[in-house]
Amino acid sequence: MLGEFGRIERFLRPLAVGCPGALNLTDDAAVLSVPPEHELVVTTDAMVAGVHFFPDDRPDDIAAKLLRVNLSDLAAMGAAPFAYTLMLSLPRTLDEHWLAGFCAGLEADQARYGISLAGGDSVSTRGPITVAITALGVVPCGRALTRQVSGPADRVAGQRVFVTGTIGDAALALALALGDLSPEPPLSAAAVAALTTRLRRPEPRLTLGVALRGLATAAIDISDGLTADLGHIAEVTGCTAFIEWARLPLSETVRTLVDRHPALLASVVSGGDDYELVFTAPPEARAVLAALAVEQGVAITEIGWLEFGSPGRVDILDQNGQPLTLTRRGWNHFTDAEPPTSGAV
Amino acid sequence: MLGEFGRIERFLRPLAVGCPGALNLTDDAAVLSVPPEHELVVTTDAMVAGVHFFPDDRPDDIAAKLLRVNLSDLAAMGAAPFAYTLMLSLPRTLDEHWLAGFCAGLEADQARYGISLAGGDSVSTRGPITVAITALGVVPCGRALTRQVSGPADRVAGQRVFVTGTIGDAALALALALGDLSPEPPLSAAAVAALTTRLRRPEPRLTLGVALRGLATAAIDISDGLTADLGHIAEVTGCTAFIEWARLPLSETVRTLVDRHPALLASVVSGGDDYELVFTAPPEARAVLAALAVEQGVAITEIGWLEFGSPGRVDILDQNGQPLTLTRRGWNHFTDAEPPTSGAV
Repeated sequence: MLGEFGRIERFLRPLAVGCPGALNLTDDAAVLSVPPEHELVVTTDAMVAGVHFFPDDRPDDIAAKLLRVNLSDLAAMGAAPFAYTLMLSLPRTLDEHWLAGFCAGLEADQARYGISLAGGDSVSTRGPITVAITALGVVPCGRALTRQVSGPADRVAGQRVFVTGTIGDAALALALALGDLSPEPPLSAAAVAALTTRLRRPEPRLTLGVALRGLATAAIDISDGLTADLGHIAEVTGCTAFIEWARLPLSETVRTLVDRHPALLASVVSGGDDYELVFTAPPEARAVLAALAVEQGVAITEIGWLEFGSPGRVDILDQNGQPLTLTRRGWNHFTDAEPPTSGAV
Repeated sequence: MLGEFGRIERFLRPLAVGCPGALNLTDDAAVLSVPPEHELVVTTDAMVAGVHFFPDDRPDDIAAKLLRVNLSDLAAMGAAPFAYTLMLSLPRTLDEHWLAGFCAGLEADQARYGISLAGGDSVSTRGPITVAITALGVVPCGRALTRQVSGPADRVAGQRVFVTGTIGDAALALALALGDLSPEPPLSAAAVAALTTRLRRPEPRLTLGVALRGLATAAIDISDGLTADLGHIAEVTGCTAFIEWARLPLSETVRTLVDRHPALLASVVSGGDDYELVFTAPPEARAVLAALAVEQGVAITEIGWLEFGSPGRVDILDQNGQPLTLTRRGWNHFTDAEPPTSGAV
């Protein structure tokens, strides 16, 4: 069995080759040059076995998800990937195949998203596998997207709400995996696989986030659920968000399931792990957003609007414009039953 | 009991007040402006209950140590503290007094070292308390200290080895705490308290690290033990380091114990957690280093030199210039018994 330095040499050092400032992982810290006229964007997300993923999930899937949930936070700020550090707290009994698989997952995604390992720490634990990444991104000075719509009141209140891709896939994949959802007739294997990929390999909307600089007036990624995350924009902006249920972009599988089991609507709008972007923009941005969606091959759907008052409230409206009642508003760590989801500090 | 957002509001948000780019911990990520003409220095260190600290250690001590071991890595690079992110993986059963104490420890040290919280993640676990910090520092471009002495061969081989403060205190404090060391006559309560403070509240040599820019030719902090950490400098520089045992700076308590139990010498030179700096400099730097030691009130002691050959070897020489044989060369995670120490990737 390799010692700590042997593991670093074999599995982690190759991940740092693309980052000269990582100093080959031989020094106390990395030394990085942020491009001139850019700001640094920093986020940390952790995942724990049995809380954020199933202990027997493939290690490359766990690695990919860990990196992607961090990159999704960069996307929501309009930042481009720059570098990341890795924290591994691993049971002593874990074999090296696990670490090899985990690092293979990181390696593939480093190439996919153009980011490299800058440093980190590996420790042993008697508890469950716990992994964390601190991702660094860069954005031209003053151009980061935030959660707060700023500007004159009449402009803020006129904002429309948009979402990328489709929502609810990850939440229903989780419900299937947990056995909470057993549709009759059963879904096809292909449909289950597609949903599961959304849960295990979310797609951080990085290039779209960069393109939304100066176009979106506020943005957030959907990690805790559409209503919870849009609620953050609504809260800091002093608004209620109104969402028209009929406009929500759903995959064919999710639409079929919700049509059959309307109670699943709650999971679709409040389940986490979609990692799509929800953002606001003025109505006059519609044409540019439509062109952007075509250019990037990612759906951008207008789903509602903001109105002043009851800060943080999110109302889902039915076909008649009446608010629907939901049973939960996204997960909240420490108080709910443990869900496989993550929440930023 | 507060939920996740309540905990952030009450305990973590106050830690971010000094960091405007933290956006009050309400956004997906922090947005930070690295000063012009400076590079970013990044390090991550984690600690696990039962591995790096005793589960019943005071939470403010745990927090202080976590922040300080990260700051010590910045010090070893000659970087000034800039900001940090925090990863908390806490048992659901942990009460809020623990978190309050932990954050109080961070708050006191933030003021002491001039750094603020920029963001992070808090998750729950069924395992032991696991905490990590990613510390960001800044250093003028091209001025970071590294572990490698560079330059012409005759210059490298002429380098002298220096160490700050005293070494061995933390290792003997740990041996006392574990019951591995029971000196007769017993140490005074004051002596035990002084040793224990070195273990629990190491002093990152930040201002000294900054002053060593352009003066030290290589530097590292002692986290895994003098021989292991100096061995890293020796290895990347292609040298053997020779250390004269009689020149090692020891506190009065450590000197008394070693005089009585010579076997403790191994713990002094190979035990971790001192967080002093060990660095190389040419002989002509002696006078400047002596003045610096007086100015900063920190001992700087010349303890040996580098010679080409057997890269990574560290020989401790007795009064007659003969190498001493030691039983271990510092801790190495994943293969040794679990020690309360930390090793950077």
